[in-house]
Amino acid sequence: MNKRIAVLPGDGIGPEIVAGAVRILQTIETLYGHQFELTYADIGGCATDKTGTPLPNETITICKNSDAILLGAVGGPKWDSLPVEKRPEQGLLKIRKALNLFANLRPTTCYESLADSSPLKKDIIEGVDLIVVRELTGGIYFGTPSERREIGGKPGAVDTLQYKNEEIERVIEKAFEVAKTRSKKITSVDKANVLETSRVWREIANQVAEKYPDVLLEHMLVDNAAMQLIRNPKQFDVIVTENMFGDILSDEASVLTGSLGMLASSSLSEEGPYLYEPIHGSAPDIAGENIANPLATILSTSMMLRLSFQLDKEATVIEEAVNNVLNKGYRTRDILSPNCKIVSTNEMVEAVNKEI
Amino acid sequence: MNKRIAVLPGDGIGPEIVAGAVRILQTIETLYGHQFELTYADIGGCATDKTGTPLPNETITICKNSDAILLGAVGGPKWDSLPVEKRPEQGLLKIRKALNLFANLRPTTCYESLADSSPLKKDIIEGVDLIVVRELTGGIYFGTPSERREIGGKPGAVDTLQYKNEEIERVIEKAFEVAKTRSKKITSVDKANVLETSRVWREIANQVAEKYPDVLLEHMLVDNAAMQLIRNPKQFDVIVTENMFGDILSDEASVLTGSLGMLASSSLSEEGPYLYEPIHGSAPDIAGENIANPLATILSTSMMLRLSFQLDKEATVIEEAVNNVLNKGYRTRDILSPNCKIVSTNEMVEAVNKEI
Ligand SMILES: CC(C)[C@H](C(=O)O)[C@@H](O)C(=O)O
Ligand SMILES: CC(C)[C@H](C(=O)O)[C@@H](O)C(=O)O
Repeated sequence: MNKRIAVLPGDGIGPEIVAGAVRILQTIETLYGHQFELTYADIGGCATDKTGTPLPNETITICKNSDAILLGAVGGPKWDSLPVEKRPEQGLLKIRKALNLFANLRPTTCYESLADSSPLKKDIIEGVDLIVVRELTGGIYFGTPSERREIGGKPGAVDTLQYKNEEIERVIEKAFEVAKTRSKKITSVDKANVLETSRVWREIANQVAEKYPDVLLEHMLVDNAAMQLIRNPKQFDVIVTENMFGDILSDEASVLTGSLGMLASSSLSEEGPYLYEPIHGSAPDIAGENIANPLATILSTSMMLRLSFQLDKEATVIEEAVNNVLNKGYRTRDILSPNCKIVSTNEMVEAVNKEI
Repeated sequence: MNKRIAVLPGDGIGPEIVAGAVRILQTIETLYGHQFELTYADIGGCATDKTGTPLPNETITICKNSDAILLGAVGGPKWDSLPVEKRPEQGLLKIRKALNLFANLRPTTCYESLADSSPLKKDIIEGVDLIVVRELTGGIYFGTPSERREIGGKPGAVDTLQYKNEEIERVIEKAFEVAKTRSKKITSVDKANVLETSRVWREIANQVAEKYPDVLLEHMLVDNAAMQLIRNPKQFDVIVTENMFGDILSDEASVLTGSLGMLASSSLSEEGPYLYEPIHGSAPDIAGENIANPLATILSTSMMLRLSFQLDKEATVIEEAVNNVLNKGYRTRDILSPNCKIVSTNEMVEAVNKEI
């Protein structure tokens, strides 16, 4: 199989972990006779440094001409005091919009072998396996006006939470499609007792549900969801919600099982290309030290192989390799457990590579 | 001391737990020679049933003519399919606005004796003692437009997150005042990398901080805060944030320690009266069964005595009585622990009463 992959290492630990994932991709390429043509491009703070903007047009073009995109992470204190439009995270927001990546899938799985590094009790998190489907190109992230203005004659500011019905419908449909392949339960999260957009969201969820009679839909208010994720995360399978609620809840979900350094995500559009990235951030404090955990990025490539290239076997090989190194006790410093073997980023990559 | 208290039992378990708290208030009245003149009024679903609206004008008048307000809880499935303006929670939203209750204080404490009922590991929650100060009368809860409308020629909907600078300033000042009486650390939570209102929020927080040189201010993004509350809740003392973020984070915080049934809250205005209520909801599934936990409502009256009437001694007596019954092993069913004595709502109230 011949595929073009845009590789966007980004800032902080981004380059290290992406290098590790690329090493694994290349092993798969050789072993299984594929050809992955990698094109590197800039995003985030490093892009601002070089070009004055966190998402140069060249990067957009490279992404649009690729079959899938692998992203590391962006951001760091170095760029915190720049004007908004030059900050690294604007690169993220813009690439989502430019590629129409409207559905962000963030699975949270409990790795048995890592249960010790969870802040939650074992009986609460054992067996947790949920996925947050977050709307990613609408809502208050992109609504206008978003500006300072007088309110009743006094200085103030305003942001706008805004959705077209069709934007709500397509992401909820995507979530139902995901639910169909899993345990067939979906929790739609909103704040319908306060927001008009949420009341519309709930109505559309009910309409879409009619097309999926074998999937069970429940509605939950966002404040309750924030509680239930901690009290009983096992009750969830697929959670679907709007952009800002999804930002908060998917981050909350990602720390439940203690496996943040293991979690991959994908962002889907109507026609592709899709974007894959680890859930964790750019960790500028440990950048360049060869201690970051490369597994979430490696698992992001496995997600890519499965979702974008339908290479199920190869994806499974990577997942099993990761499980094997964990079972053998290899750990980077973010997922330490008693009697484990502490390894560097490179050592972890090599350990996975050996298992493939 | 002579004080008028408006008592709003509300729906579900509201009447039972409020009756328990009133019993304790009356014991304090007798023992310490005060006079608490109680006036009962309707709010929520029961008000809609009687009058067609969840917050009758009479209730507002009674509240405005009182020195403090004790609220039980509102809501239940019975009223879920009514038109929005008749639903119980609209009573809550309207009373906040009518009495200008702009600062909602929600403390989360770890009760040693209840640590077992927490979903989190003991070492994570032991010693947790934080308070969320939530802006309660602004933001996306009250901004206009909030309506269905065409967006780019397509059906859609919109809500508006809107703040006057002065609304931001007064709640942040309140939070700094609270921080001054505690460990002098305050975390201001926003989404300044996306929202204009958050950027203004952050600027105003920095300005207010200049007036409190002995209080340490840090800023945190809301998605990170949702993670940090689980990973390391002990890092927090006072958290201040806008209405919707506060709704989500304070509910998240309330389940960390396993003591949700113990947590009281107060809502403050510029001039009073203040409103006190338990953090938990109306639990319609167990209403009328005499098994609900009355302690959060009892502790809400202790908060009232302290904050509205400056009756510190009496407030402490109630808190100590609650601690004593917990140490003696009395538990309602929501806070069970090994070898405890399971008691009913009434038995719990009598146990506390005996300790006073
Ligand atoms: C960096 C920021 C703009 C971004 C978001 O809020 O979407 C991030 O938190 C995320 O979740 O990818
Ligand atoms: C009932 C609802 C409108 C209310 C809110 O969102 O403010 C509740 O969740 C709360 O936190 O008091």
